[in-house]
Amino acid sequence: MASSKPEEYNLIYWPGIPGRGEHIRLALEEAGAKYTDTAHTGGIDQVDAYVSGSVPDDGVNAPPFAPPILKHGSLVISQTSNILLYLGPRLGLVPDASKDPDGLYRVNALVLTAMDGLSDEPHDCHHPIATGLYYEDQKPESKRRAEDYVKNRLPKFLGYFERVLSSKAAGDGPWLHGGSLTYADLVLFQCVDGLRFMFRKAMAKAEREGKYAKVFGLYEAVKQRPRIKAYLESSRRQQYSMGIYRYYEELDIEP
Amino acid sequence: MASSKPEEYNLIYWPGIPGRGEHIRLALEEAGAKYTDTAHTGGIDQVDAYVSGSVPDDGVNAPPFAPPILKHGSLVISQTSNILLYLGPRLGLVPDASKDPDGLYRVNALVLTAMDGLSDEPHDCHHPIATGLYYEDQKPESKRRAEDYVKNRLPKFLGYFERVLSSKAAGDGPWLHGGSLTYADLVLFQCVDGLRFMFRKAMAKAEREGKYAKVFGLYEAVKQRPRIKAYLESSRRQQYSMGIYRYYEELDIEP
Repeated sequence: MASSKPEEYNLIYWPGIPGRGEHIRLALEEAGAKYTDTAHTGGIDQVDAYVSGSVPDDGVNAPPFAPPILKHGSLVISQTSNILLYLGPRLGLVPDASKDPDGLYRVNALVLTAMDGLSDEPHDCHHPIATGLYYEDQKPESKRRAEDYVKNRLPKFLGYFERVLSSKAAGDGPWLHGGSLTYADLVLFQCVDGLRFMFRKAMAKAEREGKYAKVFGLYEAVKQRPRIKAYLESSRRQQYSMGIYRYYEELDIEP
Repeated sequence: MASSKPEEYNLIYWPGIPGRGEHIRLALEEAGAKYTDTAHTGGIDQVDAYVSGSVPDDGVNAPPFAPPILKHGSLVISQTSNILLYLGPRLGLVPDASKDPDGLYRVNALVLTAMDGLSDEPHDCHHPIATGLYYEDQKPESKRRAEDYVKNRLPKFLGYFERVLSSKAAGDGPWLHGGSLTYADLVLFQCVDGLRFMFRKAMAKAEREGKYAKVFGLYEAVKQRPRIKAYLESSRRQQYSMGIYRYYEELDIEP
């Protein structure tokens, strides 16, 4: 089946922020895959066309609710963890199915947990009331939510991933599962990177304390992968701005 | 691989609420599968043991962050959509892989979108600031969030699923994908059922208006499946209480 599909992947995502699309980019970059990215080709119209339903019904793919969207040949799918699930085996970023047939489910669980606690929850720290309102319209609630996040949720999730990295299932080396790099490692890297931008004081303290040494070890190990390193230094890597991970001084809570 | 695993599935979830575990139960019940459920066997200790990390490291499975947890033979996995992804092909609740090899990704995207907008967001209507605080400690924020949810988010998500059900990819009949029942239909049923409990006024109006006729048609079609009907009338189906879908009169916003 894979052989009948084109070599090139098409990522459809908003320009101007790394956002959830970044998880897809990191997997494609690590694998050295060929892909196009609407972030660099005036993507707003293309994203809008899919999300508004003005892309004609092709009879095969349901309309996507939101980006990121992956187009691969005639297939169009959405949802970050779902796109990674599709790409993982194709890009060699999941355990070898002949040795670890259920590895894909183990990797997917780690990704969903990282997305919940280290991506969606940080997003809700600046949008606790309504995604349709500006941050400025929900500032007191954001402050309260960010305080709880930094004091309770962030240590809980960092502690969880430290525990995973310390379990026998993680195997030897810096990775989350089975002793080999999987796309779950790239997801955790991106979450930690975004959190370091958004919650500078809390993340600096977390790193200093040494309680999450394996989490920060994984972060550094991903950052030093040759293709990731080249990508991060390229213009393809976008700056944080008004996406999931934002810097507001008043939300940069002292832990 | 599947043949070397036991016939019986073990669901590990909190007792006392349908919760996210309900999505797993509905799939198992529709398929007539053999399963155990800690909700009926004093599950708090068993859930706590997994989540606190006191279950010994088995060398294969990473510790789960939160329930629902599925144990199947030596496999232990967590995250609702991930468990359904594992069960789907085993229970015959995904498209036939020989005819629709990418159907699983299409079904998974629908499930993730339903979980985001019709399960996680309703939950956050009574816990917009902190999951670790009581509702009573975040009542004004809850009211604001529920108002936005009922007026903006709920119509957006119901409209999205009406659009999916109206697309050619849905095929003939009441189902979301390919003209056959998949576990995505069971997930959407459970979300609509919970929303009817939580936002009575808004859901009654949505049904009356007829704008989401296909969504409510799917809801009724699932409800009339013989095994689902028998399950819903049994003591295995738990009542809504202090879980995701809660009834607070002040949050039952007039749309």
